[in-house]
Amino acid sequence: MAGGGAAASALSSPWRALLQRALKANAHLRHSTYFQLATVGGGGRPANRTVVFRGFQEHCDKIQINTDARSNKIGDIKSCPFGEICWYFTDSWEQFRITGSIGVIDGSSSDPAKLQHREKAWFASSVKSRLQYLGPQPGVPVVEDDSVKDVHLDPSGGPVDAFCLLILDPEKVDYLNLKNNQRMMFTRSQKEDGSYDWMAEKVSP
Amino acid sequence: MAGGGAAASALSSPWRALLQRALKANAHLRHSTYFQLATVGGGGRPANRTVVFRGFQEHCDKIQINTDARSNKIGDIKSCPFGEICWYFTDSWEQFRITGSIGVIDGSSSDPAKLQHREKAWFASSVKSRLQYLGPQPGVPVVEDDSVKDVHLDPSGGPVDAFCLLILDPEKVDYLNLKNNQRMMFTRSQKEDGSYDWMAEKVSP
Repeated sequence: MAGGGAAASALSSPWRALLQRALKANAHLRHSTYFQLATVGGGGRPANRTVVFRGFQEHCDKIQINTDARSNKIGDIKSCPFGEICWYFTDSWEQFRITGSIGVIDGSSSDPAKLQHREKAWFASSVKSRLQYLGPQPGVPVVEDDSVKDVHLDPSGGPVDAFCLLILDPEKVDYLNLKNNQRMMFTRSQKEDGSYDWMAEKVSP
Repeated sequence: MAGGGAAASALSSPWRALLQRALKANAHLRHSTYFQLATVGGGGRPANRTVVFRGFQEHCDKIQINTDARSNKIGDIKSCPFGEICWYFTDSWEQFRITGSIGVIDGSSSDPAKLQHREKAWFASSVKSRLQYLGPQPGVPVVEDDSVKDVHLDPSGGPVDAFCLLILDPEKVDYLNLKNNQRMMFTRSQKEDGSYDWMAEKVSP
């Protein structure tokens, strides 16, 4: 089950066809694009939260997630740059556990291509989604008598400081289908020329 | 928002009323009792998988999960005995992130009370659920020409070796309601007499 080069692998990753099929089969459910992202947090303890799938990066299998640069997960990822997605599709009873390294792209990046990805992700979000990045820092205590501040956002304006793009680069995908009780393990390996191969193996559920 | 003693805390944990309400509001959905459990696995990397809520232990807030003693998560938990549950309720749009230590109860336990909890959890499972513990070790390669073996289980027989009960003892609960955009942080502290208090604080989402 060969992969080919970095560009070709997007077309041939064997797990990706399963994931596209699950996305289609569950598309009538709003939460079908939500998954849980686990990271390692402070003190080496696990952390876990629901995030939204923002699509694949062009020409590859990397998974995009928008987040607030002020949230705890940014610190977690900077000290341990790995994550595991657990994506359960509630109508088709399929689970994808997707493991890989995570890259953080915030406004301080010096790479023009990365900044362009971040800008694209910003404009792909709804204006309502973008507004949350103008709110107070997530997780800080709310003072009850806080006056509600009016927040204005120019829809044509680029990403604000708090907007951050996460990129998870899948290395292993553990697929489980609870309807037929089948499980497949997909493992990526790198070839001498730097391109990737994916191996698929049927394992017991 | 005082807790009281270990037994009383089950009645007064402020987050538990919210969780009971969410369970009731989403009870028509089969997957409402499924959540994602994050642990720290091999090499200090995060691991994440869907598991089933098997209720609270009697007279306390500890969360019960059944699992296979041969699964990777047992090794994970033995080397890092902490977990974070991410429980998203798809109909009421509520998320509970529940952090705590995890205890493992398998057949080798020397504590009669723990063995009794494990036996109770075994008999509380359906016979179909119990059968999976008689199958091959989870995650090992399946040989295509494996002949399907008939598996017999005496419904009155006690737990088999592979059956394992996990007990997560909540220390912190991060509650988010996406319908009204409210977030509450519940933090447990221990009093001098060993009993627990829960503090609740409204935080920004």
